[in-house]
Amino acid sequence: MDRPPKLYDYLDDGQQIYRRSFDTIRDEADLDGVPAGAESVAVRMIHAAGDVDITADLRIHPRLVPAARAALQDGKPLLVDATMIDAGITRRRLPADNRVICRLHDPRVAEIARAWGTTRSAAAVSLWTEDLDGAVVAIGNAPTALFTLLELIAAGAPRPAAIIGVPVGFVGSAESKQACAENPFDIPYLVVEGRRGGSAMAASAINALAREAEL
Amino acid sequence: MDRPPKLYDYLDDGQQIYRRSFDTIRDEADLDGVPAGAESVAVRMIHAAGDVDITADLRIHPRLVPAARAALQDGKPLLVDATMIDAGITRRRLPADNRVICRLHDPRVAEIARAWGTTRSAAAVSLWTEDLDGAVVAIGNAPTALFTLLELIAAGAPRPAAIIGVPVGFVGSAESKQACAENPFDIPYLVVEGRRGGSAMAASAINALAREAEL
Repeated sequence: MDRPPKLYDYLDDGQQIYRRSFDTIRDEADLDGVPAGAESVAVRMIHAAGDVDITADLRIHPRLVPAARAALQDGKPLLVDATMIDAGITRRRLPADNRVICRLHDPRVAEIARAWGTTRSAAAVSLWTEDLDGAVVAIGNAPTALFTLLELIAAGAPRPAAIIGVPVGFVGSAESKQACAENPFDIPYLVVEGRRGGSAMAASAINALAREAEL
Repeated sequence: MDRPPKLYDYLDDGQQIYRRSFDTIRDEADLDGVPAGAESVAVRMIHAAGDVDITADLRIHPRLVPAARAALQDGKPLLVDATMIDAGITRRRLPADNRVICRLHDPRVAEIARAWGTTRSAAAVSLWTEDLDGAVVAIGNAPTALFTLLELIAAGAPRPAAIIGVPVGFVGSAESKQACAENPFDIPYLVVEGRRGGSAMAASAINALAREAEL
């Protein structure tokens, strides 16, 4: 099939689109509050959100970028709460063909959720413990998953290298991210304060952390 | 494993979380500009965005909801531009076990993108034509995919029943959604004007259209 006649005036070169997008974001966004070395993470999250204003809610621990990057380069897995994050991770950016683990559809989850009296997302986190030590965690959907992760660590579960805590929503989301930013385990974190967040922001943060080169 | 001690005060009943979220959104959001019958779509999109303000940018054609709902009930497929949308669609809400088709990873895409001088996302849309007639389209990522869809239809491709046009971003996104809302084919549309949008909003719109019941 031939390309149909172009009826609109738009860029159609993928690399140029990325470059102009990132340039526009750097022109418009206020990145003053972002720690040194984390600008590319903020830029990619803005790109995913389509909104330069998220920097106002972005809190990035000063050791988040080096800790997450070292863990990924060391081949540690990514643990995610939603299949949408999995789908959003650009595999060729991962430095060590890292595993991306989402336990939400594990057959054991329904029974654990029933036994614990909690959500399936939180129950799935209970199946993370064997992979958790030094891993990079990204939670973009369920506040209950983030709360449960912190509770499991407090109860003695292994500690991840870094937590990207960006669940979205109107019930528990803001509180879970505050708890993550105040975690008493000195685990480096990235959170978006308030209600905003989501799988796209989680995946974009991972894609930025996975590789220093922007394109 | 036993549930670890609960250290934070949060809701952990999934149904209650949904219900309270939707109640909060209905309390806070201005749904006056949303056409009759489309409120549940707006509410679910706000839920996915974590932001009641998106209603200001939401444009829903008056026939979008009945047209998309009838197409899905009739067993028509969903055509999506990103695997993240696919991952975000709640299968048990679909009324006819509808196919969800994403051609982005089709082996023909790279060659078409080269031949046409365009993005892989736009090239993938060229592979939609055999499934397009009466289908429901959702574009959450690439403005070039939305522009190309409109150009293909202008060149004689079959017409979908409805277009959810919510690509996110800084280059071409706003313009592609304007073109969608002004489509000369009288195809009912849903767009989020401006830069915001994304796969989560696309999936949430589909999940709302798929079934009238909110939970």
